[in-house]
Amino acid sequence: MKLLNQIDIANIPWEEKPADVTGPVWRYSKNPVISRNPNPSLSRVFNSALTPWKDGFIGIFRGESATGIPTLFVGHSQDGFKIEVSEEPICFVNEKGQPANTNYAYDPRLVKIDEIYYIIWCDDFYGPALAIAKTKDFQKFVKLDHPFLPFNRNGVLFPRKVNNEYLLLSRPSDSGHTAFGDIFLSHSKDLEYWGHHEHMMERGYEWWNSIKIGAGCNPIETDEGWLLFIHGVTGTCSGFVYSMGAVILDLENPSIVKYRLDRFLLTPEMAYETTGFVPNVIFPTSALVDKKTGRIAIYYGSADTYTSLAFTTIDEIIPYIKKHAR
Amino acid sequence: MKLLNQIDIANIPWEEKPADVTGPVWRYSKNPVISRNPNPSLSRVFNSALTPWKDGFIGIFRGESATGIPTLFVGHSQDGFKIEVSEEPICFVNEKGQPANTNYAYDPRLVKIDEIYYIIWCDDFYGPALAIAKTKDFQKFVKLDHPFLPFNRNGVLFPRKVNNEYLLLSRPSDSGHTAFGDIFLSHSKDLEYWGHHEHMMERGYEWWNSIKIGAGCNPIETDEGWLLFIHGVTGTCSGFVYSMGAVILDLENPSIVKYRLDRFLLTPEMAYETTGFVPNVIFPTSALVDKKTGRIAIYYGSADTYTSLAFTTIDEIIPYIKKHAR
Repeated sequence: MKLLNQIDIANIPWEEKPADVTGPVWRYSKNPVISRNPNPSLSRVFNSALTPWKDGFIGIFRGESATGIPTLFVGHSQDGFKIEVSEEPICFVNEKGQPANTNYAYDPRLVKIDEIYYIIWCDDFYGPALAIAKTKDFQKFVKLDHPFLPFNRNGVLFPRKVNNEYLLLSRPSDSGHTAFGDIFLSHSKDLEYWGHHEHMMERGYEWWNSIKIGAGCNPIETDEGWLLFIHGVTGTCSGFVYSMGAVILDLENPSIVKYRLDRFLLTPEMAYETTGFVPNVIFPTSALVDKKTGRIAIYYGSADTYTSLAFTTIDEIIPYIKKHAR
Repeated sequence: MKLLNQIDIANIPWEEKPADVTGPVWRYSKNPVISRNPNPSLSRVFNSALTPWKDGFIGIFRGESATGIPTLFVGHSQDGFKIEVSEEPICFVNEKGQPANTNYAYDPRLVKIDEIYYIIWCDDFYGPALAIAKTKDFQKFVKLDHPFLPFNRNGVLFPRKVNNEYLLLSRPSDSGHTAFGDIFLSHSKDLEYWGHHEHMMERGYEWWNSIKIGAGCNPIETDEGWLLFIHGVTGTCSGFVYSMGAVILDLENPSIVKYRLDRFLLTPEMAYETTGFVPNVIFPTSALVDKKTGRIAIYYGSADTYTSLAFTTIDEIIPYIKKHAR
């Protein structure tokens, strides 16, 4: 197992695996890392994304004020555990420099490609649709035109071009609380025009991901392929349950799913996962990866209320997925 | 009123306007032009598109056999009234020459751009999605990759590039009998990658088009702008009612709706419109335009059962739209 194209993150947030955990992923013992009402403006911060920045970390956070309208905020952390989220939302501008915020913005992902940071999120475009913005300094955020038509809420961009093309994972959906959904892969040479859409992965026959699936964190490049953490959703008489799973995609042609883990890695168990604004949600959105140690710190939203943290290593997770691939 | 970039169609199907018609559009007196069971394979042919071909016309037809599965067929006509539809469906191949038919195909449009004929229709791509194929001879049909992700059923391509880009009108929808829908405009330099999606036109506050709207025939270029026949849908306690309307788009920037007709041009009245597989449907999909006389022959599907025909002229329709624009 070897990580490819990663950097050293000496101060990656970390906690050793407890003796009683049998699976390859374990929770941070002091979860959540962002609790309710983290600052005077925000009641809940979750489904957010961090990346290394100077000697610490920076991130884009989904924050909801007392209005309940989701908006995006910048946040900083020195150690990856204690996170300060801005009280003022990000002001996006379009490529002409005009204000480009819409009625809502949620579930951001954050990825660095060729020295530019890209944010991908769900935006209001006469219904939920993906948006992409770029920044170099986390002060000016330039929003590109929407990559796709509505309706689509969940987008993850690959951390580098593959065969000279940007790749975007997404889940086409409908205008409501979509009770279905597969992962598609789309191609672009310039982030401006998109095409060659491929159906990458169907929702599962296993119960935990039988309603819908979606890409979670940015794909992590390894010599076994792209490691992709996903969410999988099942339905109950009282609503959806979101769990975390994982797959490994072919390195050269990521539309090929090489290994698909048949079981969840984490499912809502802890109070900060089973109770909150939306009970029973584990929603991974971001992973820090340390090249030297192979450590992986996974940020996930829990119960649409908290930001939580879990850990694994490349040596734990890859063999586990291969062993339990369907 | 002047038509731009049209050709002479000396044998355009035509019937003079009856004295008792007050609006600018009138029905062919011998409608429908394709009745039930037009050949041994097909029970219903509707929502189809014709274009001049040699000394007559050729078209792509939505046909349904006794299975009820919609498929596409080539049809020929000498006079535009009497139409022979093939008993064998079109076999699409992809750009590698491999078979590319899917589980269903419906509501085709047909447009000639730079000596190539393009067909746009609703295809099965893990749900309804637009497809584009090209042909020069109506014998070999090469299907391109899907321009968009699902879900989208109604697509119309402009008959020429505008500012060096292909333009595609469509209505993003959901996976069911979508009870909403606006018209979006998308751009492409190559029919391969699409972007710069714009919201062109919202469903109406007038009742006849309050549920959803969709592009109908290919836009017709005039010195007043692009004349676009549309369908507009309203809801009743017993289902949808589809009527025909029209708008005029800005010539240089067709995302601008210059004039939007506030009322329908045709609404289901005749037995072949009010009764059939889906009662109360008028669904325009194709228009023949004669440069010399300004005559326009509009093919429309009626009641998801018949192919019907209506007429207008450029001199009748443009002033009417401008007079009754909202």
